[in-house]
Amino acid sequence: MATVQPFLSPRVRQLEASRIREVANAGLGRPDVLAFWFGESDSPTPAAIGEAASASLAQGETFYSHNLGLPSLREAIADYTTQLHQPLGAAPVTSDRVAVTSGGVNGLMLAVQALVEPGDEVLAVTPVWPNLTAQPRIMGARLRTFGLTVEAGAWQLDVEALCAAITPQTRLLILNAPNNPTGWTLTRAAQAAILARCRATGTWILADEVYERLYYESLPCAPSFLDVADAQDRLVVVQSFSKSFLMTGWRLGWLVMPAELTEVMGKLIEFNTSCAPVFVQRAGLAALAEAQTLVPAVVQHLRHCRDTLVPLLREIPGVETQAAAGGMYAFLRVAGHDDGVAMAKRLVAEAGLGLAPGEAFAPEAAGWLRWCFASRDPARLVEGVARLRGWLQR
Amino acid sequence: MATVQPFLSPRVRQLEASRIREVANAGLGRPDVLAFWFGESDSPTPAAIGEAASASLAQGETFYSHNLGLPSLREAIADYTTQLHQPLGAAPVTSDRVAVTSGGVNGLMLAVQALVEPGDEVLAVTPVWPNLTAQPRIMGARLRTFGLTVEAGAWQLDVEALCAAITPQTRLLILNAPNNPTGWTLTRAAQAAILARCRATGTWILADEVYERLYYESLPCAPSFLDVADAQDRLVVVQSFSKSFLMTGWRLGWLVMPAELTEVMGKLIEFNTSCAPVFVQRAGLAALAEAQTLVPAVVQHLRHCRDTLVPLLREIPGVETQAAAGGMYAFLRVAGHDDGVAMAKRLVAEAGLGLAPGEAFAPEAAGWLRWCFASRDPARLVEGVARLRGWLQR
Repeated sequence: MATVQPFLSPRVRQLEASRIREVANAGLGRPDVLAFWFGESDSPTPAAIGEAASASLAQGETFYSHNLGLPSLREAIADYTTQLHQPLGAAPVTSDRVAVTSGGVNGLMLAVQALVEPGDEVLAVTPVWPNLTAQPRIMGARLRTFGLTVEAGAWQLDVEALCAAITPQTRLLILNAPNNPTGWTLTRAAQAAILARCRATGTWILADEVYERLYYESLPCAPSFLDVADAQDRLVVVQSFSKSFLMTGWRLGWLVMPAELTEVMGKLIEFNTSCAPVFVQRAGLAALAEAQTLVPAVVQHLRHCRDTLVPLLREIPGVETQAAAGGMYAFLRVAGHDDGVAMAKRLVAEAGLGLAPGEAFAPEAAGWLRWCFASRDPARLVEGVARLRGWLQR
Repeated sequence: MATVQPFLSPRVRQLEASRIREVANAGLGRPDVLAFWFGESDSPTPAAIGEAASASLAQGETFYSHNLGLPSLREAIADYTTQLHQPLGAAPVTSDRVAVTSGGVNGLMLAVQALVEPGDEVLAVTPVWPNLTAQPRIMGARLRTFGLTVEAGAWQLDVEALCAAITPQTRLLILNAPNNPTGWTLTRAAQAAILARCRATGTWILADEVYERLYYESLPCAPSFLDVADAQDRLVVVQSFSKSFLMTGWRLGWLVMPAELTEVMGKLIEFNTSCAPVFVQRAGLAALAEAQTLVPAVVQHLRHCRDTLVPLLREIPGVETQAAAGGMYAFLRVAGHDDGVAMAKRLVAEAGLGLAPGEAFAPEAAGWLRWCFASRDPARLVEGVARLRGWLQR
């Protein structure tokens, strides 16, 4: 055979390795490292949620489930969403608009599979969790990015410029707000303007709102596209049990979409994972039943974490950062340090401090560092700041 | 805006709804229907496996795991595979060739994402579980199919013709053996010939071998491509805990692949589901620890089911079927009935018997019916045959 096809396709070879993992690997086997690099609380899931799963297992609920999830969980999600968002202007969300997914990231991937053809133009607002830009690439889309801007440590969206960048060729707009890593949060006015533009161009909006409950302003949750959209709008909202319910390892999330899309989503779930395990869905039901006490406690603790960390960081000469309105990250840079990967690696090696480099999230975040403040013991955050300060003073 | 993009893309609109689900829906709310349409045993998972998951939950193992799975589970899978296949000629499988997936179907989807570019040619041997042909379509591939042939109820592969159909343009060959729905199983000689051809053309082989343990000949498992291939061959083998360990609802499987592919697979897992839950992986470890007693008991029972069902079916005038060497299905047709969907719907409505129509698996299986014989109580199979016989005699 004269020519043989390449072992790996170019599309897959070009998938970037995680820059976070690259830094974390530098700390492997170093129990002395204070790690704040991953987007995960160090608190385990509340016991009642795990017990619901164990009870389901003991009852032998070990069979396939509906592709779209247990009807009872879809109902509970619809009720939870309606109770949260109807007071903020949203139409009631009915269960025929809900699909249960194997985590938020799985929901995002399903949405991209459903909406994007190879060659389609996808526009993503960055910096952003790298999975959101990798997924359209995997599906063969042409990815464009639109960068936030930063002023005095606060990240902002030029709404008018974004709307101008959305054209009839833009099949899908991807946004994540409250934003990982910057903490940037969309305003209601910005959402309305973006929605109006996307209605005009026929562009779908994929809104990753998994941090909506981790919101530190007066409302019970961050502004959602659900609050401004109709039930028929080209909008898919991605949610997850991971952050608000301390359930990262469970791989359970959901989508809210136009009812017309739900049947297709069920097929795609069949072809991707078939379903979420029933006993995991029972845990989700238990979590939602506890939402009114559980989530505010999580948010109160995270607010305390944020308000412990950020003022200490801002006291360090040369550090630029702002308290984020939402999410669970401080995003910072230090004057004179322009290479986030190099700095993060040095912090691991020389200070025992584990942060994620901004380069993981977008070129425009080069030199920045992401610090996950979801720490069960806030003293870890204080000690982490001391290590950063000590390292900078060397 | 003069023209707006379509709400759904053509690629997704063309995804077929499940013909099995179409028939099953006809039996919704009919508890009197004896259902054999889904590919699932009605036995719950053995208790010790569920208890391992509950113990993990009680210990607070509710955090993210490595993308590729727990190192201990990857090692256990590698050991299990080596113990099973080294005596049959396979090279030892090392854990750097193993990725843990969220079920067999998720492993299949990940493999297609890793190997297929939009526009690539994919060749699938049919009849086959429809997910295997849907996945390349979702990824924008050009799908060709190669049909098995049937003689006196036994399905067979024309190996020479298949090899001729594999060309240097064929990026990926997809096979499922033991086969769902036909029970057809590849011989060692056929595997060797196909592998030789794919080596010459540079074609990847995606081998869905999830039924390998459900094998009723003398060997402990069906012939595997692992037995004839080198560790570096362009081969991805998909496995699952679902069938051999009665764990359908757990969504846990694995891939064996060339070590050179593993890093890419880890990235794709990150972008699809991030990881399988740790407590589910602990259940997988418990299952493998029990494999030597558990799997033979499952197989012995299924053999009894097969040997209960198939002779009774063959006694019915006009019924054409053969005892399958592997899998958990009887595949049959009845003289004078050429439309499997119509017949299956009538069987539900008029006889209270739930079978899957052959049309779900390929056009060449039109008129056939799939009967899952994984029944805890074989008397259900006997009663099902009585219903079929009674219906045909009306």
